[in-house]
Amino acid sequence: MKIAILPGDGIGPEIVGQAVKVLNALDEKFEMETAPVGGAGYEAKGHPLPEETLALAKAADAILFGAVGDWKYDTLDRPLRPEQAILGLRKHLGLFGNLRPAILYPELAGASTLKPEVVSGLDILIVRELTGDIYFGQPRGVRECPDGPFKGQREGFDTMRYAEGEIRRIAHVAFQAAQKRGKRLTSVDKANVLETFQFWKDIVTDVHKEYPDVALDHMYVDNAAMQLVRAPKKFDVIVTGNMFGDILSDAAAMLTGSIGMLPSASLDANNKGLYEPSHGSAPDIAGKGVANPLATILSAAMMLRYSLNRAEQADRIENAVKKVLAQGLRTPDIYEEGTTKVGTSQMGDAVVAAL
Amino acid sequence: MKIAILPGDGIGPEIVGQAVKVLNALDEKFEMETAPVGGAGYEAKGHPLPEETLALAKAADAILFGAVGDWKYDTLDRPLRPEQAILGLRKHLGLFGNLRPAILYPELAGASTLKPEVVSGLDILIVRELTGDIYFGQPRGVRECPDGPFKGQREGFDTMRYAEGEIRRIAHVAFQAAQKRGKRLTSVDKANVLETFQFWKDIVTDVHKEYPDVALDHMYVDNAAMQLVRAPKKFDVIVTGNMFGDILSDAAAMLTGSIGMLPSASLDANNKGLYEPSHGSAPDIAGKGVANPLATILSAAMMLRYSLNRAEQADRIENAVKKVLAQGLRTPDIYEEGTTKVGTSQMGDAVVAAL
Ligand SMILES: CC(C)[C@H](C(=O)O)[C@@H](O)C(=O)O
Ligand SMILES: CC(C)[C@H](C(=O)O)[C@@H](O)C(=O)O
Repeated sequence: MKIAILPGDGIGPEIVGQAVKVLNALDEKFEMETAPVGGAGYEAKGHPLPEETLALAKAADAILFGAVGDWKYDTLDRPLRPEQAILGLRKHLGLFGNLRPAILYPELAGASTLKPEVVSGLDILIVRELTGDIYFGQPRGVRECPDGPFKGQREGFDTMRYAEGEIRRIAHVAFQAAQKRGKRLTSVDKANVLETFQFWKDIVTDVHKEYPDVALDHMYVDNAAMQLVRAPKKFDVIVTGNMFGDILSDAAAMLTGSIGMLPSASLDANNKGLYEPSHGSAPDIAGKGVANPLATILSAAMMLRYSLNRAEQADRIENAVKKVLAQGLRTPDIYEEGTTKVGTSQMGDAVVAAL
Repeated sequence: MKIAILPGDGIGPEIVGQAVKVLNALDEKFEMETAPVGGAGYEAKGHPLPEETLALAKAADAILFGAVGDWKYDTLDRPLRPEQAILGLRKHLGLFGNLRPAILYPELAGASTLKPEVVSGLDILIVRELTGDIYFGQPRGVRECPDGPFKGQREGFDTMRYAEGEIRRIAHVAFQAAQKRGKRLTSVDKANVLETFQFWKDIVTDVHKEYPDVALDHMYVDNAAMQLVRAPKKFDVIVTGNMFGDILSDAAAMLTGSIGMLPSASLDANNKGLYEPSHGSAPDIAGKGVANPLATILSAAMMLRYSLNRAEQADRIENAVKKVLAQGLRTPDIYEEGTTKVGTSQMGDAVVAAL
């Protein structure tokens, strides 16, 4: 079993370092190989997703990813910007199934901006399609506006699209995830306006026939954004497209107030996957030893569960994280009075000790 | 001055009835004419936006709109569904500038699912472009997938697009709104992925040159969704496209916990506008006399201010609403222990009395 380690930029190297430490503390040893990605890829090889990095990611059984991005790359041409690495990896590896749990650990309920009764015990899963939609649809660009009142002016344009098979496979992922949880699935669309999402709704409804034990409902994306604020605990699993999923999964993560705790998995058709924290590269605190490594450590646990078939090891890590929270250890992002403030590597050490 | 009154479906007629009562209680009398729209239009004339209704809306100086939609129309073909009325009015009347304030009245701070310190005193304005973007872009439909791994399958597709002039005019609306408020504007885009919104960002940046007194920043839509949950009071004015605006303005409204209080305006290039509450038609409580009419009454106030040039009358209505809240009157949606529960028409009467 070979793991590609792609630390990336900002706090990426620090937090990935802690996850590697935790993986190395398990009885079974995994082969790991590191490569630069994002801004680091650009610095090392002139491209955010260097060929060697992509080759390593393709050859590996799973990928542990830190985060990419830094203000200093904002002025680069779009194809050279760090986030192209993540889009490229998703596309080249066919990582269409993004699993984003939004879980609020009871000890951290105070960190949320929402009232405790609204969010305590929150445990929802957002399944976001990750290789289709308006993210990759062609044609796109800037052209002369072909008609209407703005004819002849420049216009920016993109193509939203979903093919039947693309919707079916993500729907299967979502229904199967719901079967293992509360057996309720909410498909989020904008079928009242978009042809793409009327089609999405029809196909998800059709796939539902194969999962009679799961209750399916449909919700418009604007309403879903409202319900996440109003009563997030009413959701079990949410499935949606790439663009809506980008927005809703981040909103859901922020409901917990502790995005530093939230892992994610991006899976292909064979459960090979890329695992990364839900938060970004936080260049403002990079190198200061204060970043929270737990989202990355929990991403490593997801990796053991989904791609490496080591559910027991995943459980061990997740329990170790719960233990350090119960011990009162907190990085600054989740610190509250009465708890013990620790840095990035102390937190990693504590998880290792708790294993 | 002629006002078109389009009550629509569900609670629409009840709440619009109260706003009309308030308008009639002003010293100056306005000519008003009512027409069916949405499901009511379909019932009366076989179309959600009957020709006569559109003609009336075009002829009027302003439009007071209730809400449209009911479960029973869900099985109609898309062009006949109630929400097509609202899309049609926006498009035919060129109502490109949607102003959606998200204000939390101090008396209602308890209604929010967010902690009081996070939302009390919230006062942000979302400026949403309303006649462009993926809502109306062509081509769109269901076709055979032309290429890629799903070639030959059916696919749903839509076109996102913004022409330069479309972006410029909404940017002007937003900068001018910011000048009258806190002088800070956040332009929300997804320039890291979408050509349309890289173009959007470039044009907004260019328009900014004409408003040196306004501080402009740019934020990705996923981050904006997070920041609305994390620290909504940091925003002053937000400007964004039709699709992102749909999602963010509803999320922002729900932060207040009292969407029954929030008005909206949709303006054309000459400040003619359509005014409607931010909430929907709530068919479940229609006809029960419990709906909150305040969002519609406040929409009438916005109408007086923006389209009818009667800022003083608008102030009078807004102050009357504040007074009834201070008196402790509450419809069930905003009721809390220690306040007085009233119905729809009692609330309307109270506003009239407070004028
Ligand atoms: C960096 C960006 C392209 C990316 C996305 O929009 O998918 C990010 O926001 C995410 O959600 O992983
Ligand atoms: C009913 C629907 C078409 C509409 C929209 O998406 O614009 C609504 O959600 C709104 O925000 O006014």
